[in-house]
Amino acid sequence: MKKLLLLLLIMFAALGCRAQQALWGAPQIVSPEVHSDNSVTFRLNAPGAGKVQVTGDFLPTMQKDTPYGKFDAPGVADLVKNAEGVWEFTSDALQPELYSYTFIVDGMKMPDPSNVFQIRDTATITNVFLVGGDYADYYKVNDVPHGTVSKVWYDSPTLGMVRRMTIYTPPGYEKGDRRYPVFYLLHGMGGDENAWSELGRATQILDNLIARGEAEPMIVVMTNGNVDMEGAPGETSLGFTPPTTQLPKTMDGTFERHFPDVVRYVDSNYRTIADKEHRAIAGLSMGGFHSLHISKEYPDMFDYVGLFSAAILPREGAVSPIYDNLDGKLAAQFADAPRLYWIAIGEKDFLYDANKDYRKMLDDKGYRYVYRESPDGHIWKNWRIYLTEFVPQLFKNQ
Amino acid sequence: MKKLLLLLLIMFAALGCRAQQALWGAPQIVSPEVHSDNSVTFRLNAPGAGKVQVTGDFLPTMQKDTPYGKFDAPGVADLVKNAEGVWEFTSDALQPELYSYTFIVDGMKMPDPSNVFQIRDTATITNVFLVGGDYADYYKVNDVPHGTVSKVWYDSPTLGMVRRMTIYTPPGYEKGDRRYPVFYLLHGMGGDENAWSELGRATQILDNLIARGEAEPMIVVMTNGNVDMEGAPGETSLGFTPPTTQLPKTMDGTFERHFPDVVRYVDSNYRTIADKEHRAIAGLSMGGFHSLHISKEYPDMFDYVGLFSAAILPREGAVSPIYDNLDGKLAAQFADAPRLYWIAIGEKDFLYDANKDYRKMLDDKGYRYVYRESPDGHIWKNWRIYLTEFVPQLFKNQ
Repeated sequence: MKKLLLLLLIMFAALGCRAQQALWGAPQIVSPEVHSDNSVTFRLNAPGAGKVQVTGDFLPTMQKDTPYGKFDAPGVADLVKNAEGVWEFTSDALQPELYSYTFIVDGMKMPDPSNVFQIRDTATITNVFLVGGDYADYYKVNDVPHGTVSKVWYDSPTLGMVRRMTIYTPPGYEKGDRRYPVFYLLHGMGGDENAWSELGRATQILDNLIARGEAEPMIVVMTNGNVDMEGAPGETSLGFTPPTTQLPKTMDGTFERHFPDVVRYVDSNYRTIADKEHRAIAGLSMGGFHSLHISKEYPDMFDYVGLFSAAILPREGAVSPIYDNLDGKLAAQFADAPRLYWIAIGEKDFLYDANKDYRKMLDDKGYRYVYRESPDGHIWKNWRIYLTEFVPQLFKNQ
Repeated sequence: MKKLLLLLLIMFAALGCRAQQALWGAPQIVSPEVHSDNSVTFRLNAPGAGKVQVTGDFLPTMQKDTPYGKFDAPGVADLVKNAEGVWEFTSDALQPELYSYTFIVDGMKMPDPSNVFQIRDTATITNVFLVGGDYADYYKVNDVPHGTVSKVWYDSPTLGMVRRMTIYTPPGYEKGDRRYPVFYLLHGMGGDENAWSELGRATQILDNLIARGEAEPMIVVMTNGNVDMEGAPGETSLGFTPPTTQLPKTMDGTFERHFPDVVRYVDSNYRTIADKEHRAIAGLSMGGFHSLHISKEYPDMFDYVGLFSAAILPREGAVSPIYDNLDGKLAAQFADAPRLYWIAIGEKDFLYDANKDYRKMLDDKGYRYVYRESPDGHIWKNWRIYLTEFVPQLFKNQ
C-alpha cells in the first residue's frame, strides 16, 4: 500500500513538475494529424474564439502587393468550429515535405498548443510537421548511424570575439583517428548557427546520405553570419533579450574577412584534411553571397562552392576591400578553377535575375559552373533539396 | 539605384523568408519586460479576448486538493486590458531565478507570442525569462570560456538500441590531450536528455563554476532515463509524434542494468580518467532514484553520488534483480564508501518523508552522507541550486 502510494505520488509528481512549470490542463486534442493519404487536420480547442485560421507553407501562396512589387505570401485557411467547440481544418493531400504553420485566432498569431514541435527562426516561432516519402525521407531521423551535433565556441582574433557555431561530425568520428574533409554551410539573413541543423534538417540529410553511401563522410561547419552577434538569440551573454527584426550588421565584408579564423579553428581542433581539395563552402541567400565572396577572396581555400538562391552583388554603400575588384578575384579563383561551382535557384526567386546576370558574366569569361533551376521561390523547401543534391557531389574520387 | 533596389529586395527577403514560414504580423509589444527593480510586466495583444491570465512559477503557489492530498500548484494572475486593447500584468519584484510561465486566454493555455524563448519539457512548452543576480548569475551565459555541448548517439548492447544523450566537454577539450573526470547527470520523470542542459542550465552552471575556479574541469554526461525511447521527442525515428503524457517504461531496473553501456561508451570515445575516483553520478527525482540504485549496483564505479529530491524505493510491482537485497548492496557500497554521498531535498517536497526514512536507515547503519535541506518543494529551482552546490565538491585534491 505504501509502495502504491509512492507510485501514485511519483506519477503525480511527473505531472506536478510540469504543473510547476505552469502546464496544467494542456488540451488533449491531436493537432496536426497527418492522415494516410497525406492530408493533414489542424485542430484548436478555442470555444470562445470568433475566428480561427491557419497559415503556413503547406497552403498555396497568395500574391501580395508591396511597394517593391508582387511577392508570394503564405496562404491562409479558415478553421470551422465543430459541436464540441473544437476548430478544425483539413488540408488537401500534401507532397512530402517539412512544413511550417501557425494559427491566427481573432487576428492574433499563436502557435498550435497541441504541437510541441516548434522551430525558432530568429525572431519568430512556427510549428512544424513532416510528410514523409520521396526526398523528404532524407529529412527523417532514420535507423542509420548518427553523427554528433555540437555547439562549439571559437575565438575570432579578427573580430575580437568568441562566437558560437554548430559542428556536425560523421558517425564514428569520436572513436577513430581518420581525418575528414570539411563542408562549411552558411545560413541566410534572419538565420543563425542553428538554422541549417533545425529548419534545414542538415543533420538528418548528412546522416542519411552517408548511410546510403551517397555522400562521403565529412565534417559540416555551420557558422553564424551576423558578425555583431556572438551566437543565436538566448544563447549568448545578452540573455533572453528579444531578437531584433532589424538587419544585423552583415554583408559589409566583415564576415568574409573573419572567415579564415573559422577555418583555422576547425583545422586545429578537428581531424580535418586541411587543403583546398577537401574543403567545400555553400550557403543560402546571404550565405550564398558569403560563399561567393569568401571563395573568391581566398582562391586557395575551397574546391567546391555552392550558391543556393544567392544574393550576388554587395549592397549599396557596403565598402570593403572584400568587394573590390570582383573581376580580378574571380579570374584568380577560376585560374585554378574549383572542381565544382554549383549555382541553384528557384524560377520564382526574386534573386533570379541577379543570378541570371551573374551566370552570363561567368559564361562570357568561360568560367565553368553547374546550374540547377527548380520550381518555387526563395524558400527552405528549395534549400533542403539543394543540400541533398550538392553534398553527394563533394570530395568524390580523392 | 539598381544596388539600392537589391538592398531593399534583400531586406524584404529577410522578412519574406520568415513570411514563407508563416510569420507576418508578429505583435510588436515587449513581453516579458524585466524592470530594474526585478518586477516583470507581461503583455498580450488580444483585443478580442474576454479574459487573459498568466500562470507560472514566479507567482506564489496555490494549494490544490487532489485525491492524493494537497499539492502546490502554480499561481494564476489576471491581466488587465488597457486602452489599446493590450492586456498587461506586472508582478512584484522577483528574486533572481529562471522562471517559466504561460498565458491562459479564455481558458486556453498558450505561449506568449512576444517571447521566442521557450523550453519544451517533454509534452509541454513554457516561455522562460531570467532575473539575474545572486546564484542566478550562474545560469547566465557570461563572458567566460565555454564548453561544447554535443548530441551524441551511443550503442547499448543491453537494450539492443542506439540512444541519444547530451555531453558537455569543458573549454579546451577539443584541442588538448588532457584526460578528464566524468559526471553523469540524470533527469527526472517527464524529462529527457535535453532537460538538464535546457531547464537545468547545466551548461551555463558548469562554464561559470569552472571559469571561477570553483569546480574542476570535467565531462558531464546527460542520458535519457526512459529506456523505451531512443531520445527526446522529435529527435528520433518516431518523427514528430506527439509525446505521451503516460509514464514511459522506466524505474523497472532496465535503465540501471544498461548503465554500464553508457560508461563504456564514454570511456572508449572520450578522454576520460576511467576509474571510480574520477566518476560522479547524480540526478533529480527519478534520476536521484537511478543514481541511488546504479551506484549501489556497481559499487566500484562512482566515488561521488548525489540524490536531488530523489525517489528512494522501487515502485509497486517493479521486479528486477537490481532492486533485490538493498541492505546487502548498500553494505557493499559503503564498505568502500563514496567520498561524497550527498542527499538534498526541499522541506515541502512530497518525497521528504521517504528521504527522511532513508537517512534514518543510513544513520542506523553508520553510513556517512552529507545532507542539505532547502525551502520549497519538488521544483527546478532547487535542482539548479543543488547542481551549483554539488559540482564544486567533485574531484578535488586528486
